[in-house]
This record gives sequence, C-alpha cells and structure tokens, in this order.
Amino acid sequence: MTRSHHRTAAQIRPVKITRRYIKHADGSVLIECGDTKVICTASISEQIPPFLKGQGQGWLTAEYGMLPGSTHSRMQREAAKGKQTGRTMEIQRLIGRALRAAVDLKKLGERTIQIDCDVIQADGGTRTASITGAFVALHDAIQKLLDQKLIEATPIIDHVAAISVGIFEGTPVLDLDYVEDSACDTDMNVVMTGRLHLIEVQGTAEGNAFSRAELNTMLDMAQQGIEELIAIQRNVLTQP
Amino acid sequence: MTRSHHRTAAQIRPVKITRRYIKHADGSVLIECGDTKVICTASISEQIPPFLKGQGQGWLTAEYGMLPGSTHSRMQREAAKGKQTGRTMEIQRLIGRALRAAVDLKKLGERTIQIDCDVIQADGGTRTASITGAFVALHDAIQKLLDQKLIEATPIIDHVAAISVGIFEGTPVLDLDYVEDSACDTDMNVVMTGRLHLIEVQGTAEGNAFSRAELNTMLDMAQQGIEELIAIQRNVLTQP
Amino acid sequence: MTRSHHRTAAQIRPVKITRRYIKHADGSVLIECGDTKVICTASISEQIPPFLKGQGQGWLTAEYGMLPGSTHSRMQREAAKGKQTGRTMEIQRLIGRALRAAVDLKKLGERTIQIDCDVIQADGGTRTASITGAFVALHDAIQKLLDQKLIEATPIIDHVAAISVGIFEGTPVLDLDYVEDSACDTDMNVVMTGRLHLIEVQGTAEGNAFSRAELNTMLDMAQQGIEELIAIQRNVLTQP
Amino acid sequence: MTRSHHRTAAQIRPVKITRRYIKHADGSVLIECGDTKVICTASISEQIPPFLKGQGQGWLTAEYGMLPGSTHSRMQREAAKGKQTGRTMEIQRLIGRALRAAVDLKKLGERTIQIDCDVIQADGGTRTASITGAFVALHDAIQKLLDQKLIEATPIIDHVAAISVGIFEGTPVLDLDYVEDSACDTDMNVVMTGRLHLIEVQGTAEGNAFSRAELNTMLDMAQQGIEELIAIQRNVLTQP
Amino acid sequence: MTRSHHRTAAQIRPVKITRRYIKHADGSVLIECGDTKVICTASISEQIPPFLKGQGQGWLTAEYGMLPGSTHSRMQREAAKGKQTGRTMEIQRLIGRALRAAVDLKKLGERTIQIDCDVIQADGGTRTASITGAFVALHDAIQKLLDQKLIEATPIIDHVAAISVGIFEGTPVLDLDYVEDSACDTDMNVVMTGRLHLIEVQGTAEGNAFSRAELNTMLDMAQQGIEELIAIQRNVLTQP
Amino acid sequence: MTRSHHRTAAQIRPVKITRRYIKHADGSVLIECGDTKVICTASISEQIPPFLKGQGQGWLTAEYGMLPGSTHSRMQREAAKGKQTGRTMEIQRLIGRALRAAVDLKKLGERTIQIDCDVIQADGGTRTASITGAFVALHDAIQKLLDQKLIEATPIIDHVAAISVGIFEGTPVLDLDYVEDSACDTDMNVVMTGRLHLIEVQGTAEGNAFSRAELNTMLDMAQQGIEELIAIQRNVLTQP
Repeated sequence: MTRSHHRTAAQIRPVKITRRYIKHADGSVLIECGDTKVICTASISEQIPPFLKGQGQGWLTAEYGMLPGSTHSRMQREAAKGKQTGRTMEIQRLIGRALRAAVDLKKLGERTIQIDCDVIQADGGTRTASITGAFVALHDAIQKLLDQKLIEATPIIDHVAAISVGIFEGTPVLDLDYVEDSACDTDMNVVMTGRLHLIEVQGTAEGNAFSRAELNTMLDMAQQGIEELIAIQRNVLTQP
Repeated sequence: MTRSHHRTAAQIRPVKITRRYIKHADGSVLIECGDTKVICTASISEQIPPFLKGQGQGWLTAEYGMLPGSTHSRMQREAAKGKQTGRTMEIQRLIGRALRAAVDLKKLGERTIQIDCDVIQADGGTRTASITGAFVALHDAIQKLLDQKLIEATPIIDHVAAISVGIFEGTPVLDLDYVEDSACDTDMNVVMTGRLHLIEVQGTAEGNAFSRAELNTMLDMAQQGIEELIAIQRNVLTQP
Repeated sequence: MTRSHHRTAAQIRPVKITRRYIKHADGSVLIECGDTKVICTASISEQIPPFLKGQGQGWLTAEYGMLPGSTHSRMQREAAKGKQTGRTMEIQRLIGRALRAAVDLKKLGERTIQIDCDVIQADGGTRTASITGAFVALHDAIQKLLDQKLIEATPIIDHVAAISVGIFEGTPVLDLDYVEDSACDTDMNVVMTGRLHLIEVQGTAEGNAFSRAELNTMLDMAQQGIEELIAIQRNVLTQP
Repeated sequence: MTRSHHRTAAQIRPVKITRRYIKHADGSVLIECGDTKVICTASISEQIPPFLKGQGQGWLTAEYGMLPGSTHSRMQREAAKGKQTGRTMEIQRLIGRALRAAVDLKKLGERTIQIDCDVIQADGGTRTASITGAFVALHDAIQKLLDQKLIEATPIIDHVAAISVGIFEGTPVLDLDYVEDSACDTDMNVVMTGRLHLIEVQGTAEGNAFSRAELNTMLDMAQQGIEELIAIQRNVLTQP
Repeated sequence: MTRSHHRTAAQIRPVKITRRYIKHADGSVLIECGDTKVICTASISEQIPPFLKGQGQGWLTAEYGMLPGSTHSRMQREAAKGKQTGRTMEIQRLIGRALRAAVDLKKLGERTIQIDCDVIQADGGTRTASITGAFVALHDAIQKLLDQKLIEATPIIDHVAAISVGIFEGTPVLDLDYVEDSACDTDMNVVMTGRLHLIEVQGTAEGNAFSRAELNTMLDMAQQGIEELIAIQRNVLTQP
Repeated sequence: MTRSHHRTAAQIRPVKITRRYIKHADGSVLIECGDTKVICTASISEQIPPFLKGQGQGWLTAEYGMLPGSTHSRMQREAAKGKQTGRTMEIQRLIGRALRAAVDLKKLGERTIQIDCDVIQADGGTRTASITGAFVALHDAIQKLLDQKLIEATPIIDHVAAISVGIFEGTPVLDLDYVEDSACDTDMNVVMTGRLHLIEVQGTAEGNAFSRAELNTMLDMAQQGIEELIAIQRNVLTQP
C-alpha cells in the first residue's frame, strides 16, 4: 500500500497551523493537514441564545462550510441552494459539541463564541482538521478576553483534537485522505482531550461491519495520532 | 438508582413490535420500547435516484420525524417551520446507513425502498427504536417483492438492531429513557448485525470525557441489549 | 352499490375514540373512522400570538399533517420538501376555525391551545375525523386547566363534530371513504355544533355542478351523521 | 343599516369589466366591484403538468396575489417573505377549481391555461371578483385559440361567476365590502354556473353558528347576485 | 430606424402620471411610460428597522415586483417560487437608494416610508419608470404627514427621476422600449436630481464595450430626458 | 488625508495574484488587494443551462460569497440563513456580466465555466478584486481546455479588470479600503477591457449627488488604476 506523503499506515499527514490568519476575527487559523486546508475563526459576541438567558453561563456554537471550488468536482454552493445539506449540519454539530467539551461555559460569562470552519481545499478529514484547528482559534479568542480583562481565568479545561481512522482494504490506517476515505470499509472519527479521554467516537461501517478487535486497533491508532496533534497545538501556542 | 420499568442498569425496556400496523405501506410496524413509540414504514418504488442510474443496483433511504405532540413539551412542526433540524437530518442519515448495511443493494434490483420512522410518543431512544423497528418493516416489504416474484432471492444479509447506552451518575446504564438521557454524562448509540459485528458506534461525552475502559463497558452492555432485540425481531418474524 | 363496512348510503363508518393516547400532551385521542386513523393532541401554552396581546383573551390554532406512509401510495414528507401544500394549509385553517367556534376565547384567558392532527392511516374523511377527534382532545386539555384551577368555568360553548357527504354515481352518500371520495361528483364537508347549527359548509362540484335540491339532501344526511358523532363524543366523555 | 354605494341588503356593488387590459396576456380584464379592483389574466402554454402527460386533456390552474399597497394597512409582500400565506393558497385553489368547472379539459387539448388574479385595490370580495373576472379573461384566451384554429370547438361549458353573502348584525346581506366582511357573523362564498347550478359553497360562521333557514336565505340572495353578474359577463362579451 | 410612438433617437415615450390611484396607500400613482405601466405606492409606518433605533432618523425602503401576466411571455410568480430573483433584488435596492437620496431622513422623524413598485404591464424601462413614479407617491405620502402636522417641514430635498439610455445598432437612443432593450449593445440607467446632479449611473455593455465618448453622449441624452420627466412631475404636483 | 499603505489619492493598493491556489479547480487564484483577499476559482462543466440548449454556444456564470469571519464584525452565514442577500446577488451578477464580456461564448463550445469568488478577508473593493482575480482563473481554465485540445482557439477576447473609485471628504480617491468606502459620498465601480473600453460603470451617490465633472475625474482615475491592474495580470500570466 502506497499512501500520500510517503506515510505508513499509522502515520498522520504533515500538519501546519498558521495563527492570526484573518485579521478581523478574534481568533483565526489556517490549518493544513496534507492537502486539506481549513480556515477556522472564533468570533466573540456579547450575547447569548434565548434558552440560556439568566443562567450565568456562556455558549459556544459552530458552523461549517466548503468553498464550491474546494472539492474534486465543484460542489453546489449551499447559500445559492438555500439550504445546508445533512452532512454539513452533522459536521457543524460535531464541531460544536467537541469544542464545548473543552470549555467551562460558566467561566466564559454571558457571551457566545462562534466558531466558523470553512474548507478552502478538501482532501479528506475536513471535520477532524476543523476541530483541531478551531481549538487554536478558540484559544486565541479567549486569550483576547483575558487580555481585555473581560474574564479573569481561562475557561479552557483541556486541549481538544480529532483524527480519522479507517479500515482500507483490510488494513487499519490513520488519517485517511480523500481517495482512502472514498474506498474504505470503515470510517471512524475520534475526538480526544489532552488527557487522552474520549469526547466523541463516530465509527461507521461503509462496506463490511467491523469487529470489536478492529474497533480497538483503530482506537489505539487514533490515540497515537491525537497525541501528535496535541503536541503540534501546544507547540504553535508557545509562540507569542 | 431506580429505573423506569423496575430495571437494573443492564436491562432494556419492555419491547413490543406490531407488524402490519399501517395498511397501505409495503411493510409497517409499531415498535414500542417502554414509552417510546415509533411507526416505521417501508415503501417500495420502482425508481432509483439519478446518481445510481444504470448501475444495476437499488437504493434504500430513510426519513425521520416526530409528531409535535410526541415530546414532553410540544415541539414545533418541521413542515410548518419549513425545514428539518440538524438533529432530524443526523438521525435520518444514521437510520439510512444502518439499514443499507443490512441489504445487498445489487440483489434489490433497480428500485428504492423508502423507510419512514415517525415518533408518536418520545421517551428516549427514538433513533435506536427506529432502526430496530424499521428492520422488521423492511423485511416485510422485501417479502412482498419475493411473493410477487419481482426478486428471486432476498437481498437481506443480516439482522440489524440498535440500542443506546450511557454513563449516568457514574454508572453505565443500558437503554436510557428521556430522564436518564437528559442527565447522563456520556451517551452512545450502537448499531450491530445479527452476527454481532458493529455497523455504527456513536459515543458523545455530554459532560465529562470518557475513558477507553468506560467505552468497553458500554459496548459490552450494548451487545447484550442488541442480542435481546434481535431475538425479539426473530420471534416476531416467525409469525406469518 | 356496495359500501365499505356493509353500510347503506346514509350510514357512517364505525367510529372509535381512544382518550389519553399520547402521554405528554395535555389532551390527546386516537380517532378511528373506519380505516382512517388520526392522532389529535391539544397542547396548552401560556403565551398568545402578538396580535392578541393585551386583549384579555386566548387563542386556539391547529396544524395538520399526514405521515408519508399513511396514504395509498407514499406521499412526500412536507418537512423534507420544506413547505406545506395548499391542501394542508386549507385543512388546518378549517380545523382551527371549527374548534374556535366551540370555545369562548375570553373565558380561556391569555393562553393558547395548539391542536395537532396527524393522520397515521388515511382512507377518506381525514379532515372531518380530525375535527371530531380534536374536540375530545380539546375537552381534556381544558379539563386539565379546570383541575389545576387555572380557569374557573369551562370556555367550551358546545360540542363540534364534522362529517363528509357527497354525490357518488348520482346517489347522495354519507361519510365517503377514499375510493368514493376519489370518484364522487360532489364532495361536501359539514361542521355542526351540538345544537345542530352550522359552523362550516364546504361543498365542491368535482365533476357536475349540483342543484339546491341535492345540496339540501346532502345537508340532511350530514346532520344525521353529526348527531351520531356527537352522541359518540358525549359517551366517550362520560368515562372518567 | 347604511351600505356603501347606497345599496339595499340584497344589492350588489356596481361592477365594471374592462377587457384586453394588459396587452401581452392571451386574455386579460380589469374587474371593478365597487372599490375592489382585480387584474385577471389568462396565459396559454403548450405544456401540461407531468401527472396529465399522455391523457389527451388539458389543464387550468390559478394563482392569486395582492399588491402590498392594495389593503387598508400595507400587507407584507409574499415574494419577499418567501412564501404564500394559507389564505392565498386557499383562494387560488378555489379560483382554479371554479374555472375548471367551466371548461371541458378534454376539448382544450394538451395545453395549460394559467389564470392570474392580482388585487390592486382591496375592499372585500376579492376572491369572488377574481372568479367573475377571470371567466371573461379565460373566454378571451380561448377565443384566441379558436381564432388561431388550434382548437375547433370551444371547451367552455357554461359561464361561472361568484359572489359573497353574509349575515351582518342579524341581517343577510349580499356582496359584502371590507367593513361588513370584517364585522359579519357568517361569511359565505358561492360559485354558480350560467344554468344556476352550484359549483362551490363555502360558508363559515365567524361568530355565531347559523341555521339551515339562514343558509337558505343566503343562497337565495347569492343566486340573485350571480344572475346579475352573469348578465354583465354576457353583455361585455357581446362587444367585439 | 423606426421607434415606437414615432420617436426620434433622443425622444422619451409619452408619460402619464395618475395620482391617488390606490385609495388605501398614503401616496400612490399609476405611471405610464409608453406601454410600460407601474403602480407605485408609498406607505408610512411609525416604526424603524432595528439598526436605526435611537438615532433620531427615519428610513425609506423599496420593493419591486412584476405581475406574472405583465411580460411578453408570462413570468413565474416570485411568491409561488418562494424567492425573489437577483434582478428583482437589484432593482428594488436601486429604487430605495435613489429615493433615499431625495429625502433628509433626519427630518422624516423615527418612521419608515415603504415604497412598492408593481409593474402591471412591461415594455422596457420598468425600473426607471418606478423611480420617476415613486417620487410622486413619496411626495404625496409626505404631504399627508405635513397635513397631519406629524412633521413640520418637508424632508424632501429635491426631485428625483430616472431614464434609460442605450446604444442600439450603433446609435445612442433614449428611453428604450422592450424590443430595443433586448437588442441593444449598451444599456444605461441614469438617476438625477432636479438640480441635474447624478445619483446613480449604471451602464452595462451587453455586447460591445463602450468608449468614454459614447458614455458622454448617453449621459447628455439622459440629462435631457430627465429634465423632461422632472417637468412632468412638477406639473402633476401643481394639481391639488 | 492619510491613506492605508501610504498611498496618494490616485494610487491603488499593493496587488498580489497567486495562481493555482486550489488544486482541484480548473483555474484558481488568490488575489490580495491590500488587506482584501479573495479566492477565485473557475470550474468547467460539460453542460449548459436549458435556455442555451442547441444554440452552439457556451455559458459563463459567477457566484460570490464572504466567509462569516472575513468582515469587521462577523456576518451571518448565508447558507445557514437559507438565502443570499440582495448585495450578494447584485455582486455575483456583476462579476458574471463582466467576465462574459471577456469571452466569445460561441468559441467556448457547449460548456459552462462557473466562476466562484469567495472573500476570505474583506477590506473594501471585494467585488472589483473578484473580477480582476477571476479573469486570471478564467484564463487558466481556458488554457486547460486548449491543452486538452477540447477547443482550438482561445475564446478570450480581451483582458478584464475592475477598480473602485470614490469621492471621500470632497476628494476623488482610487481603490477605497473599508474605512474610506464606509464614509465616502460617492462610490463607483468601473470595469474595463485591456483596450480600455468600458464594460460596466456603476456610480452611486451615498451622501451628496455628484456632478458630471466629478464623474469624469473619477473615470480618469479608474482608467489609470485599471491600466496598472491589467499590467499585473499580464505579468502574472507570462509565468508558466
């Protein structure tokens, strides 16, 4: 098996996170995982949704989109069609849940952090790259709140990062690119914290059902990948 | 811990599947899992979606809805709002994927089976009840194709059933009702085949992240529950 | 002429009303008129629409839907299409007007009763079954307000029930089933009070225009049917 | 009781029908009933809806709208809101049914006549004025088909006209204007043919339920009004 | 070149403005420019959009529509399609901007003037006719505010009128009708004030790009046409 | 007056065009005009819209969007709202018209080029940057058709570029950034060809109406800016 970027089955693609990529947003990064490129922004607003009024806590929500030209063959623009697809909704709900797990919403105060993840080039793993990148954008937006003394202590509980893993032609492989993702039997997305606890496990048999043993192998691989991603996040955040 | 229906942590709720519940549909059941009640219908149409034209295979797709009066406080009617929520889309995509894993689409021929799962009373676990019930409706629709000699051999590969499992106040519990579901730390939906292979695993930390050990306990419990559900499916299908 | 359920031209189908069918709703029934089955719920909310603010009165409104699998050939799900059809809108407006005629909105206080009528099996006469069934659900929701001492006297003025009548192959027939409805020349829906006054008369010539004499025969038949339906409502409401 | 245009209870408002009001449409009129003014156009297209393909017959359908400035206080533009109200849908379905009753669709051939009724000034009775006016526009569109020898014999079976009637402060009144319509107890729209058979009867108790005797008085009045309207249609159609 | 209405290249079509055309609106006109006919209404509401709250100024906004039967071949009803086309949006934004330039919004007070321009017959130049006509409707609505002493001084700064100009088969022509508009190389819409300053210039090369010299010729022609239109506005406004 | 990037009134911002920015699209660039950054892609499809079937020509159309995080304060995602704003529609229609003027659609053959312009960072002049950048993406997509020998000769007639110009505090200024654009009296967008003919002129008085003399000064400035932009396009296209 030959993998893109000369990888072994258990290796992730080269990752690059560029902070402060968009000048207006409170936090923003470009994350590149191989040929997958996502712009993640975090925008603070001093409002909270009606269902949280008066509960002394904040909120975090996420939206996801793909540029029409980002995919192998051009995809239709959701704004022009007038609705988001089920896939988009599913992904943005996942991103929101994953990042809320990283934040103590009580400590955030009565404000909302809006995460936007927009894929500018897609080559597999856009939802996991979105989560890994958005964590850094979130961190920078929260740092801004700290710098402005709007909050006293950081509401961030732990790092959050995500990776995909699958079974491709019988072999478990980490961090699938588009070609692998389209052809694999099982596809799993795993989200973990810096302490390596699980936040989300979403495994789907596309072709053949999978066994508990296969599930365990995939989870081991995913944990390894997430450890690497969190090290990359930590490294990029040490820079001023 | 006192559970509804006097259950232990590892017990499922009483399940009742009524076949041929709606007279027009090709297959239809009412599935009752405790107080959760879902009407599942399977409708055959001799058409396939454009992207499958000429590939000599069929298709199976699913839609999900809740009656406005089915929930604890009335929910808005999606038809009146003019769009389905992200939750609805996520669930109907899950039901479709789960049941497609039960069917050899090549053997189905160039036709579509449309699954509809409509919740008439909701008390937790509506998506897993939908999958477990819809499998029986699917079976009956396919039996009709066989009876009409439109297909020669059944395209059904294996049973499919689903159950939820979670961690509620630190304890792993099987088949959560609404109260448990609203308060649990981790919520996982598991879909398995008759051979007890995995089709879907969707675990979400609502409060605290969960460990691999907890994941394993939950999967063990889920497997036990699914074995029971498949026995119930088998039993109801032995009746003429 | 042979009619379903061995009926004469002037006979209604067997009717069965099951109260407290859905556990969460303030009032709920399953009404079965022959093979037509509708779940009717009444939900109370302590809000009123903006146009009634400060007028010291309540409101009642209704929505109607059909499960996709309820009809002879599966109908498209309105929530998925993103809009309600004209037929649906027409029917839910009719149900709302009919039931508002049964209630003194001043005595209801500043709250809204939301009626939902969802057809789970359709065999003609779904709109009239909805009205007849929803009256009982409405009664039970209002009884709950009385029990909770939120209102002192019942705002219900009179019973309301509805029936269809038509001219089928030259003969006036009461309570048309789907086959008769599809083939009849004239189709009329009549809504009356317990005192046998008219609330709505909606007669439509599908094929041939009809005479005043035919109109009168149909109204006589409808009145007879409604007397029976109101007796059934009264009977079911005597039970605790 | 003082009525607009110095009318007695049983008199209709002054009616004026101007033919060929819009130069592009195949048939078009401006109908004025007192202060209610509606532009009715009939447009022929050589296509039929899919459900009628290959059945050797035509179709007629209608749409209805109100200019935002046509009403007492400006109403929202439906095109801007992105959907038609239930009232609009109900009215355009009524107009379509009424005019289809005037036409033998077999004789029309495989083509569609699209009726558009757009209210430019509203003062009660817009739906009945639409029907009465649209019949003349329909006639002229069909005359064009005859002149072009696209059809040999007219598919028009009979005249169709419509009027409202109601009970206002206890008195039956014909052809209600906006003030009467807003305040009346019962409101009925009646559509009849040239032979004075009924096509539609839609009576609604807005306040008090009405008796069979009141219904009969209203129908007598309506018949009288429709006779007058049909005489006006006949007169305007004698002009070249 | 033969032009409709026996015009030379630099002549506008005959213009007729009928004031108080719709009885309910605060201001209303029918403007006829040759065969193009537009109903323009101005409706006052004592509300302002949220983004202007508390800024001590008013607002003016415009909507535009075409009756389905107004065009050469029937156009689809935007309300039925559920959305306005890009062309409609573009035109109504232009009308709004043009008329806001005529009004000192500070002097208007915290209220909104809603302009509606509805084309009942289209023969080219509907957007420019809308602006020219809507100015007169706006004037009459503001006069009503003055008469009711709701404002003390008129917020109208200057007249506003608009005309189209183009290059048709190499020749610059003023006030294009539909046939000319469909076939011209360049199409320009010009909006000017009574003092002959420019408010909008929108020139588009449909076929060949145009030179600065051609632009200047077109602007000269447009100015001439607008002078005439403003004289017509002034004349119609001298009448009581 | 101090301008961003130390510019004089008649200077454009630094421009950088990066070709082949997105790997899947047939042509793609990142254009940066000061802090305004737009990704432009051109995608070829071997289909044409229905209204062009059988006419032996191709089509070019454009869509435009802004990432939610691209603007000073986060803007709502159009895909989530379910519709594009009027501003978006207006801009994408402009981009489409401008680029169609650059192409001989007959020579393109029966295929469509879809242009997508997505703003990733907005600082004024996004629509003009889109046009200037999209021309280069269009060029590269057409080169691909030539390389694949799908067409024999280039259908590109001439370069197309665009710039904004305005009157800011009484002074004409070229290439307005966001701050200038928000505060200027007049705002004009000019699109020209390589031969310096005009394709579009869109001038709008935001505050004060402008004179012919001011219009001329602005057009002179715009021409100068466009000459520079076309030189930059030419230069970047000389690279392989």
